[in-house]
Amino acid sequence: MEEDKKFMQEALALANDALLKDEVPVGALIVEDGRIIASAHNLVESLQDSTCHAELLCIQKAAKYLQNWRLVGCTLYSTLEPCIMCASAIMQARISRVVWGAPDKRLGGFGSFINVVENHPMHTIKIGDRVLQEESAQLLRSFFQLRRENNKQRVVDRGRCICAND
Amino acid sequence: MEEDKKFMQEALALANDALLKDEVPVGALIVEDGRIIASAHNLVESLQDSTCHAELLCIQKAAKYLQNWRLVGCTLYSTLEPCIMCASAIMQARISRVVWGAPDKRLGGFGSFINVVENHPMHTIKIGDRVLQEESAQLLRSFFQLRRENNKQRVVDRGRCICAND
Repeated sequence: MEEDKKFMQEALALANDALLKDEVPVGALIVEDGRIIASAHNLVESLQDSTCHAELLCIQKAAKYLQNWRLVGCTLYSTLEPCIMCASAIMQARISRVVWGAPDKRLGGFGSFINVVENHPMHTIKIGDRVLQEESAQLLRSFFQLRRENNKQRVVDRGRCICAND
Repeated sequence: MEEDKKFMQEALALANDALLKDEVPVGALIVEDGRIIASAHNLVESLQDSTCHAELLCIQKAAKYLQNWRLVGCTLYSTLEPCIMCASAIMQARISRVVWGAPDKRLGGFGSFINVVENHPMHTIKIGDRVLQEESAQLLRSFFQLRRENNKQRVVDRGRCICAND
């Protein structure tokens, strides 16, 4: 449990880096034998690629590092419950354990929206959830609040432009 | 419908290329305004990356080509019903229509195993299914039959080795 918290802290630092780049603040990493072998944060907007979620990028990096698509024995940490795409990718990569922070009620693939584990035909996985949940959720709340405020400001600015052009 | 068959024939040719490389024979392409803007076949074994499904590779290529992660207005063709990971990626990329050949009873994300469309919080999609189903399924059957025969042969060869070493 202490080790889980330690790695989740690292994932939170990555999520914070994402926030600074105006990306949805989610960080993830993959650990093998107590060592981080891959880490990433969301890069959807920066790379203009909807598949660039932190977890998927981690899986790709870990496979490259190990030169093996089977990530048996690895644990993936993510600050947010992986979405259906990433949860399925985690199962496909045969990752042995997944630990996440805040639940994702909209798109979570480990039970919050859909449960990809139930009746999965080829893999079972251990799950640790809600590790440093509040810290992860707070980062996401800050991001979406800031985004709403920026959007409101853009509407005000657009209104001013229209008035100036009248 | 005729156009769907034409593009599915192209996807089948890609699936056949995959078969020749000893990859699970699935091909996919993305069409925008009647023009193919991305195409790929499975590359999981060649690249040792479990995320390298034909559909996911196509989404990444199309986003790069359009320099936009939102693939609104695009149609994705795949010879096999996309798995949960790819079906979710298709929804995430805001692809407008998906057309697939054979159903994937084990892992299909458009209803055969899980339905990612039902109650999806942010996107709806049009689906065309079972286009050139038999041709797609036949390619997959050939691949798995060949794999079983090769595995049997390996067991026989191993048996011979053990006998020779006795």
